[in-house]
Amino acid sequence: MAEPSTKAIPLLKDELDIVIPTIRNLDFLEMWRPFFEPYHLIIVQDGDPSKTIKVPEGFDYELYNRNDINRVLGPKSSCISFKDSACRCFGFLVSKKKYIFTIDDDCFVAKDPSGKYINALEQHIKNVLTPSTPFFFNTLYDPYREGADFVRGYPFSLRGGAPTAVSHGLWLNIPDYDAPTQLVKPLERNTRYVDAVLTIPKGTLFPMCGMNLAFNRELIGPAMYFGLMGDGQPIGRYDDMWAGWCTKVICDHLGLGVKTGLPYIWHSKASNPFVNLKKEYKGIFWQEELIPFFRSAVLPKECTTVQECYTELSKQVKAKLGQLDPYFNKLADAMLTWIEAWEELNPPAGQTIGPAK
Amino acid sequence: MAEPSTKAIPLLKDELDIVIPTIRNLDFLEMWRPFFEPYHLIIVQDGDPSKTIKVPEGFDYELYNRNDINRVLGPKSSCISFKDSACRCFGFLVSKKKYIFTIDDDCFVAKDPSGKYINALEQHIKNVLTPSTPFFFNTLYDPYREGADFVRGYPFSLRGGAPTAVSHGLWLNIPDYDAPTQLVKPLERNTRYVDAVLTIPKGTLFPMCGMNLAFNRELIGPAMYFGLMGDGQPIGRYDDMWAGWCTKVICDHLGLGVKTGLPYIWHSKASNPFVNLKKEYKGIFWQEELIPFFRSAVLPKECTTVQECYTELSKQVKAKLGQLDPYFNKLADAMLTWIEAWEELNPPAGQTIGPAK
Repeated sequence: MAEPSTKAIPLLKDELDIVIPTIRNLDFLEMWRPFFEPYHLIIVQDGDPSKTIKVPEGFDYELYNRNDINRVLGPKSSCISFKDSACRCFGFLVSKKKYIFTIDDDCFVAKDPSGKYINALEQHIKNVLTPSTPFFFNTLYDPYREGADFVRGYPFSLRGGAPTAVSHGLWLNIPDYDAPTQLVKPLERNTRYVDAVLTIPKGTLFPMCGMNLAFNRELIGPAMYFGLMGDGQPIGRYDDMWAGWCTKVICDHLGLGVKTGLPYIWHSKASNPFVNLKKEYKGIFWQEELIPFFRSAVLPKECTTVQECYTELSKQVKAKLGQLDPYFNKLADAMLTWIEAWEELNPPAGQTIGPAK
Repeated sequence: MAEPSTKAIPLLKDELDIVIPTIRNLDFLEMWRPFFEPYHLIIVQDGDPSKTIKVPEGFDYELYNRNDINRVLGPKSSCISFKDSACRCFGFLVSKKKYIFTIDDDCFVAKDPSGKYINALEQHIKNVLTPSTPFFFNTLYDPYREGADFVRGYPFSLRGGAPTAVSHGLWLNIPDYDAPTQLVKPLERNTRYVDAVLTIPKGTLFPMCGMNLAFNRELIGPAMYFGLMGDGQPIGRYDDMWAGWCTKVICDHLGLGVKTGLPYIWHSKASNPFVNLKKEYKGIFWQEELIPFFRSAVLPKECTTVQECYTELSKQVKAKLGQLDPYFNKLADAMLTWIEAWEELNPPAGQTIGPAK
């Protein structure tokens, strides 16, 4: 029986970092101040490292530009994208916290239908602290929410759910459309507030957007690699998609849950559809091959950690997608470099960084 | 690209029957009059056939009691449950229409958050007339709805969707809980209106409730058998669940879609949890075996019609669930009887009922 969580939502102040990729002054933080000020921010500055990015006063933050990334990772910095918001995953790497919330700098505080500002972070925390239900669909949505439960016909043995690894939030105003849809529907705005959180069932893939995303770094961190995009790469705007497909396959294998729905943020500005089309067009073609690849990917039982799963997945990328385009061989190598970087910066508890003795 | 359906929703007056199982006068129809009066009703009277059931004036209906069922089906009437709302599937059998909407007689017209009465039937018609998206999850819910679309990362080859076979509506006020949950949460009411329709992904099972349900009889009718429940049977309250699990497995095999969400109806009265517990307790135990059975059920490629799929499923029920309880052998036989009855009453176009020549 799901117990309604009448207790207050913990802030997780010392357990959560907010990661923001950006190329500009972070004025958007003013609107988030009441919600974000208690937290530590990790700002990943993209583009020209000589540029100074202003962060509003009163926020606790660390900021990394490209020079910092190169310094911290050395040759392994090749796995971190440049001139693409995919660089955000560097923030996931250097965080030492259990939870990550990542948000784009053109996302503002949305209002719920009653006109109240939505504390997106609080909802993400609710989402990651309560179980998911990936093994069977509950028609009344999140059964752990107050006023809801599992419906008749839901097997009792499955009501414990699964640990939640990912909380994928949505967007009011500008929807996250691809370039062709942007071009065809330039005026479409998302005005519909759907008051639901649901688990994406096991075996089902989804398009994970990095704009408003939280996850449990301890459970799934090493899979949250945003790939090679932007400068010097043949595609962009598939960074979060790639991370989402890898993450979902690994969550399914390890019995972890992925939620989507609440919270909403206010996405203020559509990016240029012509620029987007240039970034996306290979991805639009390639994704027709990627989805069958991820849908049929099977990880061996021996893979019991995210790192092992991810390493195995990189092998399968090379073996099965390398023929699609040489880019995927490069990406598969970068996936391994990412895991090496992760293990270097996130040694198992009790182990210090340094050469093996 | 999904085109917003700005055109008016067709009534489908000559293509849809409303099926109502009942044991009492149908006063509840008064509230539905503006919405149901244009349609033909098939009323399946359960219990004592000598009792007269009053139908409010002005409705176009046919009414079948147990004597009628026995007369129409002869010895095959053994597959239709008695003293259980599972008898509703007799109405599906005798209908000649393409679409069915079935509703319980304790369900009234609900209001949307703006206070407007919800035309549930119109929403079901929308749901069955637009495609489903069972192969990939769309985070902005139904992409065919006005103001929505497929999000970035949704493969273009999958945007045509799949034909929709089933539209599963929800309930405000009394949620559809099992007896244990009813006992533990006697005061819980569903007050949350979630403004969404979504496709239940391929490979995912769900608890289908028969209270507020529409389907395309031509696409999936023969799978909508509500099993053996009630009088003389060891369980009750699993009729719709059984139908839902069989239906979902067959829809997945045939590439058909199942939607859930809108429309809501107002469910007025919780059934007695003590009576329900007596009906359910074997089902609560058995469903722990049924879910793995249905989850792993594979239908051979040769099964290309619903009838063939259902016949194959009945064989698998006998082979794999017969050992759980002799009831499942009886149920497997009843599934075959149901298919025989279906074929007798619904001969392929151009074929008349009668002995083979």
